[in-house]
Amino acid sequence: MKLFDKVAIVGVGLIGGSIALDIKKKRIANEVIGVSRHRKSLLSAKRLGVIDRGSQNIAIIKDADLVILATPVGTILKSAPLISKLVKPECLVSDVGSTKHLIVSKLDRIFTNYVGSHPLAGSEKRGVLNAEPNIFRGSLCILTPTKKTKPKNLKKLEKFWKMLGARTVFLSTENHDRILSFVSHLPHAVAFSLIESMPKQYLRFSPSSLKDTTRIAASDSELWGDIFLSNRKNMLKTIALLQKNLSRIKHAINKKDKSLLNKILKEAQIKRKILR
Amino acid sequence: MKLFDKVAIVGVGLIGGSIALDIKKKRIANEVIGVSRHRKSLLSAKRLGVIDRGSQNIAIIKDADLVILATPVGTILKSAPLISKLVKPECLVSDVGSTKHLIVSKLDRIFTNYVGSHPLAGSEKRGVLNAEPNIFRGSLCILTPTKKTKPKNLKKLEKFWKMLGARTVFLSTENHDRILSFVSHLPHAVAFSLIESMPKQYLRFSPSSLKDTTRIAASDSELWGDIFLSNRKNMLKTIALLQKNLSRIKHAINKKDKSLLNKILKEAQIKRKILR
Repeated sequence: MKLFDKVAIVGVGLIGGSIALDIKKKRIANEVIGVSRHRKSLLSAKRLGVIDRGSQNIAIIKDADLVILATPVGTILKSAPLISKLVKPECLVSDVGSTKHLIVSKLDRIFTNYVGSHPLAGSEKRGVLNAEPNIFRGSLCILTPTKKTKPKNLKKLEKFWKMLGARTVFLSTENHDRILSFVSHLPHAVAFSLIESMPKQYLRFSPSSLKDTTRIAASDSELWGDIFLSNRKNMLKTIALLQKNLSRIKHAINKKDKSLLNKILKEAQIKRKILR
Repeated sequence: MKLFDKVAIVGVGLIGGSIALDIKKKRIANEVIGVSRHRKSLLSAKRLGVIDRGSQNIAIIKDADLVILATPVGTILKSAPLISKLVKPECLVSDVGSTKHLIVSKLDRIFTNYVGSHPLAGSEKRGVLNAEPNIFRGSLCILTPTKKTKPKNLKKLEKFWKMLGARTVFLSTENHDRILSFVSHLPHAVAFSLIESMPKQYLRFSPSSLKDTTRIAASDSELWGDIFLSNRKNMLKTIALLQKNLSRIKHAINKKDKSLLNKILKEAQIKRKILR
């Protein structure tokens, strides 16, 4: 028996589309339904075999057993109340938003069977045309159960992500948002600021170092504006911390303090080598 | 006829080793001589067929027609006076240092036939074991002629880099150092500070965004300390500019000013898409 009969993906973009694709390829559900504001996305999703049927009308989700909200954070927050009126009471609801505290606080209240997810996968690309099978294989998916979470829902959602190839870990929404503000949201803020700092006429000299450090600045700006605002307090802290660390390097350069500079860079180098 | 009879590479690391490898594979010289402080590097270079013969004694370069200094910036500056006493008067001398003003000012004075080079290639890896053929193919090599530069030397060095597959461009040392402080040195400072900002216990949650933005922080810390110090004034300016741009993002987040935040991120996104 399949894990679900009907799964509805709200927001058939890079992540939503990739989830849909995996559900179909791995036969996790009998039917995959797509919802998008954009008719073109639905047509592409249909043509690419990502979804079985789709609609711009959210009412199409009404008989789904699993609904995954894969729109930007702000849209998840805005659309949840209407969606809660459409789904079957027993429908399991999740989302893939990059910040969890605001979303989970709200969705946990309005849905009977909700658990938040955040798969750490994806790229600076967007849209269903960039959806790919197996992008969750070997990746980490953070689930954010609350006091209200029913164990059987958590178990089922965990099973779902594992079938997509992800390792799962449970975090409170507060821990999730703090950790992600460091390992994901700060690097994005930095990449946006770094490319902003470049005089346009110098871009033709760009070495791979600039390309790599700013690759994620090609990400959807609205999506990331949403993420920064929905993780506001953490972002203010992590950006300030980075600025302080840049000031340490600046100070060592200004004082021509070679040994201090080497100490700072060496410690960073050692820490970076932990990452594979 | 080959472009050179004997080429000596001082500093048989990633870049020096890759140059040596290309010279041999493309038969640009009859003999490639390597100099290194480390006996192990010379043995590896010999074993890998990167050099024909090598020595820890710099005197080995005495009959070379082309000497390329491929050590860190500080070592180039320190070793140049001794090297100038060893080379044949007609020997063409170049270097691959990442900053040019200090190096070129000094080396132009002490060598009869000197032209500075900066190939924009390489990676965070180091050592001759990571040397690769064709790393300069399709890359940009900046040459920094001065008033003193003899046209025939510039021409010959340009020909050399083109044989290695690089496109060449001429810049004054001042322009070189200013441009590179933006497109290369600032991204490195940022990568070091970014990884420094990460609490160690969060590293296991690292998504590809953090890995990509900090990849170059695995670079040799001493090499980069040297580069920052030898491009001091430009670095102080570019780091301060980045901090200012981060403050703009912080300000927009703090004020919950979604339209300002989107404007900043959108402009950055558009600029990033110019880079391929």
